[in-house]
Amino acid sequence: MVDNYALLSDFYEFTMSNGYYLSNMKDKISYFDIFFREIPDNGGFAIFCGLEQVVKYIKNLKFTKSDLEYLRSKKIFSEDYIKSLENFKFTGDIWAVPEGTVIFPNEPVMTIRAKITEAQIMETYLLTCLNHQSLIATKSNRIVRAAQGRAVLEFGARRAQGAEAAYMGARASYIAGCNATSNAMADKLFKVPAAGTMAHSWIQIFDDEYTAFRTYCEIYPKNPSLLVDTYNVLKSGVPNAIKVFKEVGISDCSIRIDSGDIAYLSIRARKMLDEAGMTDCKIVASNSLDENIIRDVIAQGGKVDIFGVGERLITAKSDPVFGGVYKLVALEDGDEIVPKIKVSENVTKITNPHFKKLYRLYDRESHKALADLLCVYDESLDDSGPIEIFDPEFTWKRKLIENFYARDMLVPIFKQGKLVYKLPSIEDIKVYCRTEVESLWDETKRFENPHKYYVDLSQKLWDIRHELLKNAGRR
Amino acid sequence: MVDNYALLSDFYEFTMSNGYYLSNMKDKISYFDIFFREIPDNGGFAIFCGLEQVVKYIKNLKFTKSDLEYLRSKKIFSEDYIKSLENFKFTGDIWAVPEGTVIFPNEPVMTIRAKITEAQIMETYLLTCLNHQSLIATKSNRIVRAAQGRAVLEFGARRAQGAEAAYMGARASYIAGCNATSNAMADKLFKVPAAGTMAHSWIQIFDDEYTAFRTYCEIYPKNPSLLVDTYNVLKSGVPNAIKVFKEVGISDCSIRIDSGDIAYLSIRARKMLDEAGMTDCKIVASNSLDENIIRDVIAQGGKVDIFGVGERLITAKSDPVFGGVYKLVALEDGDEIVPKIKVSENVTKITNPHFKKLYRLYDRESHKALADLLCVYDESLDDSGPIEIFDPEFTWKRKLIENFYARDMLVPIFKQGKLVYKLPSIEDIKVYCRTEVESLWDETKRFENPHKYYVDLSQKLWDIRHELLKNAGRR
Repeated sequence: MVDNYALLSDFYEFTMSNGYYLSNMKDKISYFDIFFREIPDNGGFAIFCGLEQVVKYIKNLKFTKSDLEYLRSKKIFSEDYIKSLENFKFTGDIWAVPEGTVIFPNEPVMTIRAKITEAQIMETYLLTCLNHQSLIATKSNRIVRAAQGRAVLEFGARRAQGAEAAYMGARASYIAGCNATSNAMADKLFKVPAAGTMAHSWIQIFDDEYTAFRTYCEIYPKNPSLLVDTYNVLKSGVPNAIKVFKEVGISDCSIRIDSGDIAYLSIRARKMLDEAGMTDCKIVASNSLDENIIRDVIAQGGKVDIFGVGERLITAKSDPVFGGVYKLVALEDGDEIVPKIKVSENVTKITNPHFKKLYRLYDRESHKALADLLCVYDESLDDSGPIEIFDPEFTWKRKLIENFYARDMLVPIFKQGKLVYKLPSIEDIKVYCRTEVESLWDETKRFENPHKYYVDLSQKLWDIRHELLKNAGRR
Repeated sequence: MVDNYALLSDFYEFTMSNGYYLSNMKDKISYFDIFFREIPDNGGFAIFCGLEQVVKYIKNLKFTKSDLEYLRSKKIFSEDYIKSLENFKFTGDIWAVPEGTVIFPNEPVMTIRAKITEAQIMETYLLTCLNHQSLIATKSNRIVRAAQGRAVLEFGARRAQGAEAAYMGARASYIAGCNATSNAMADKLFKVPAAGTMAHSWIQIFDDEYTAFRTYCEIYPKNPSLLVDTYNVLKSGVPNAIKVFKEVGISDCSIRIDSGDIAYLSIRARKMLDEAGMTDCKIVASNSLDENIIRDVIAQGGKVDIFGVGERLITAKSDPVFGGVYKLVALEDGDEIVPKIKVSENVTKITNPHFKKLYRLYDRESHKALADLLCVYDESLDDSGPIEIFDPEFTWKRKLIENFYARDMLVPIFKQGKLVYKLPSIEDIKVYCRTEVESLWDETKRFENPHKYYVDLSQKLWDIRHELLKNAGRR
């Protein structure tokens, strides 16, 4: 375990940073955008998550004596550079969309304006943190939407990619709509409510299932959940659970099915519970679930009230990488901001240059999001009348947007190194995230082949990009 | 960031543990096995990794005041139980296979003998840690084998599932055969050598590619690696790299291609380098690589010397879950060890009961591993003569093993709470892991449809399992 992440960084960030330092470019002001290119699972949108941890990382970023000794031991860095890290403090500006915001490909979700030496060494951690939590939030929201209002519990700690992935993933899943986690640490650290009752070992350790249930309910009479599949769900588990609930006098309770055919077993178990008058007893299901299985179980009439989702959520198993990148988009030269573009053999890897604003346009009546528009930093969008937007690739595809209002999405987080953003509570982020998803049309929320949301460029930005590409092609 | 993982645990571990405490079972001695059921990517074997972190977790396991306050705040635990955690110290025994060992489904890779209250609360972290590192080691070894002796660098930090997944993943990948990492923290913490030179931002910040290369080589003349795909690999990147290497007088160096068709570009670049007399200049490739793409690139004659592998390694993208489980296999009753089995609606989830030994049988001539045999703890295998082993499911499938020697795989790690195992250095683990993989027949190492390695039960263990299943079926 480590208590600071200054070295959680690709080694080349330091190689480059030392190089800038020695090339008289250490104070060069640079602009980096964080954006992503593809939505996991071919979904219609992603959810931005992890900002709070990025803020804390930047606030606490310092190089310990042993960090500096490590760098020194490599014998390739100048002593002046290493000394400059001794009192490292971030002095730049950062803008970002708030945590829980719905985001789309190729738009900046965070912009860093800083001395190149500072901006470069933060790249890796910022990406690692935002990529991970955005991945889990995006996946969790798919699962939560599939459950159609039924509760979803995050149960994945033991299959997470390490301890941090477990509790940070629990945080992201809660923001994205899960109701609780099995993870005690996520509860302690982030106030994500922890839930969970028993494993099969509890049942096995007693002489029989009945005694195991009875003992449990006597110790925990408040809303116990009994695991009914250790021997046989319908012949043993459910009958024993009903018997014990009645004997101890518990009506607020649940049973959990962790193997077998969830749809079939839950329908049969529901019938048995209802016939015994246990109509308030809920059914929890938990066996390698994901959004597809949940939709199937519901479609087949499964009587599940609560879904416990483990490995497929906490690793985003079906598409476990969120491809956020950190790209140079501009440099300051005196008072001028000079846009920069990265061309590439792969056309999809070409960047949107310049220091930018990100506007989201909403319909005045439905308040649904209509399109996102990237503008140059010194443009300001007039939303009093209609505007025409166009596809940046197929520019003949045009659309007139009327009766809309524009929202400036990137809010200041740091100004000259000072935190100027008040971090919201996790409950506020969760509520905000729900309203964000509600601001989308159903077509964008489809699980398969969703409508592609517009992310367009202003004419001015498009012209600058086009000019830079032409020049790059000429080299 | 957190400095202790006592609460990195599913909440139900505490609920159950408190329950045992209140049911006069707190001192009940239990045996738990850690094993897994399916090899990721349908491979022929997995690699056990993460033992060192498990040892450190257990040695340092303590509940801080704030951990105890957290548990108390839940108002469901007895004060006596919470007090018992105040001075928590593991007092049990643990056996495990060494880190880097080749492992197979349904055999214990770790056995925990401890008071049930102690064993239960360690379940989650042990699984999280071992599942994660074993996953990454297993995947990395596939990639390393695909590279057929060419170097493989781990480049995935920014796409890892969080910061810990990045540096722990780098550790696991190194053990499994990668040559280095991009991750500075893995270097500082674990002595995994860190490598890496420049991103596209370095090229973009200078007026042109030539100046960027030249500046870099002047600062870092020792084995520099130039990124040649910012503008155009063959028209600009490689010619500029050759020019700069010659001007500065560098022959020990490399170029890196990070986009485009790796096979084609590397062949053309190799030719250009050789024609310029730069035969010692190596070619690094790094663009969404994995074992399949690497095998293709090599099959197509690609001239890559070093593969930089990122997101598909660090998340084990093609199969990102390692399903290790922690199952009760026995309980002590006085002097007797009583075997326990978990039956299940899913037959594949039925466990191998009892406190067991794990033997690996090796051919005396080739020293290749022939089969694994699970025995009851009090059996000892006589390898002086031939033995007959049989498939535990299809018992008529029998095989006579001759001229073999047996290795007792599970070594003592903790005895009565005391660490009795000397943790090897990472270099020793890496060397051991290589010999482990070499002990397998090629048929077991195939990427697709490998030969299924035998994991059989002794007659005595098979009989016990059969008896327990019969009794469970009768309930």
